[in-house]
Amino acid sequence: MKKAIILLSGGLDSATCLSIALDLGYKCFGLSFDYGQRHKFELDCAKKLAKHYKIADHKIMKIDLRSFGGSALTADIEVPKHRDVDLQKNQIPITYVPARNTIFLSFALGYAEVINCNDIFIGVNALDYSGYPDCRPEFIESFEKMANLGTKSGIDSGSIKIHTPLIDLKKFEIILKANLLDLNFKMTHSCYDPDETNGRSCGHCDSCILRLAGFKKAKIDDPISYDE
Amino acid sequence: MKKAIILLSGGLDSATCLSIALDLGYKCFGLSFDYGQRHKFELDCAKKLAKHYKIADHKIMKIDLRSFGGSALTADIEVPKHRDVDLQKNQIPITYVPARNTIFLSFALGYAEVINCNDIFIGVNALDYSGYPDCRPEFIESFEKMANLGTKSGIDSGSIKIHTPLIDLKKFEIILKANLLDLNFKMTHSCYDPDETNGRSCGHCDSCILRLAGFKKAKIDDPISYDE
Repeated sequence: MKKAIILLSGGLDSATCLSIALDLGYKCFGLSFDYGQRHKFELDCAKKLAKHYKIADHKIMKIDLRSFGGSALTADIEVPKHRDVDLQKNQIPITYVPARNTIFLSFALGYAEVINCNDIFIGVNALDYSGYPDCRPEFIESFEKMANLGTKSGIDSGSIKIHTPLIDLKKFEIILKANLLDLNFKMTHSCYDPDETNGRSCGHCDSCILRLAGFKKAKIDDPISYDE
Repeated sequence: MKKAIILLSGGLDSATCLSIALDLGYKCFGLSFDYGQRHKFELDCAKKLAKHYKIADHKIMKIDLRSFGGSALTADIEVPKHRDVDLQKNQIPITYVPARNTIFLSFALGYAEVINCNDIFIGVNALDYSGYPDCRPEFIESFEKMANLGTKSGIDSGSIKIHTPLIDLKKFEIILKANLLDLNFKMTHSCYDPDETNGRSCGHCDSCILRLAGFKKAKIDDPISYDE
């Protein structure tokens, strides 16, 4: 059984990625990050998903990106609400966390190498996304090249692969795909700014806007709770 | 004054890198990692260097590479001693920590972006080294390309630069260079397997062997203490 590392934030996209990797027959190892994110609530979902799918292992790596700051997700900067995400697609928003996916993928690379695995899944998505540079195909391709040069397993095999099964899908297509794979959407969390006490989603940050529009277009009910 | 991030392990090479960056007129920001390394003693040297040179900031990032393991530096695997480092140059030794430089450089990238800096210094060295894949020029070039694609600052400026001033130097040349720049070698630490109580270097691991041979060839006394 081929092994795969799944970057598992607990969000809709990474959960879909996990369902896809399992469906493809991979033995899955989840990797999540407690990085000082405002929406740490997503980690509960990552744990639920890991347990539900009985994946081979699930590591939660603690790293302090808050000590760098520079993002609404890791500093005392307000999460923007009610943005027109479509119109502002070409601007990198303040919720962008500097080098986050590079850091996450680097850890995945180290983990993969230790367990003798050449396949890493990440749920980036270049269509209905928030304009982050580290979600684009050219970044992923470039990371993959670097990974094959900078590791023992890359040099030995030359075949470290960064899988991005969602990269060309729109949000509603991701939701349809996840639905076909019986993903329990209740086990996913997308909001950048959830209620601290009950974890309810705000409904108005970029991530909620994209999620809600996606469910609407997919004609599927989103079972998670939103603030009134 | 241009800013630079210096990956500062506390070893001879990173300390030399810091002296070079300061000499070039950069305002230096040090970044060290408490990553579960066996030779955590090196962090004391990093702190001493940061204090001595009064650098702009020094961050020590705690990350748990021991939870992955897979290396003599981060798992209960013995550090090899008395190896013929020259002869075994083409083998990647067990002290290689999977994806370590990729992880370190990724954090440096995030830090750089937040403080509006495009220059990162790393003391890798492709001649008198231990055969690590992530010390080679092709890896560094590839990382730099990726960095310019995966960050806001890279996209805006296209000029994120990974500086490797030691990459083409032999160890004795690094030592001569550091000596010219008045580096206090006592503030550096190289041993992979120091005495836990007094921090004395073993004198027989790859890193000690390369250091000792370098000082000998440079005709300079190494002022640090070695075990008898």
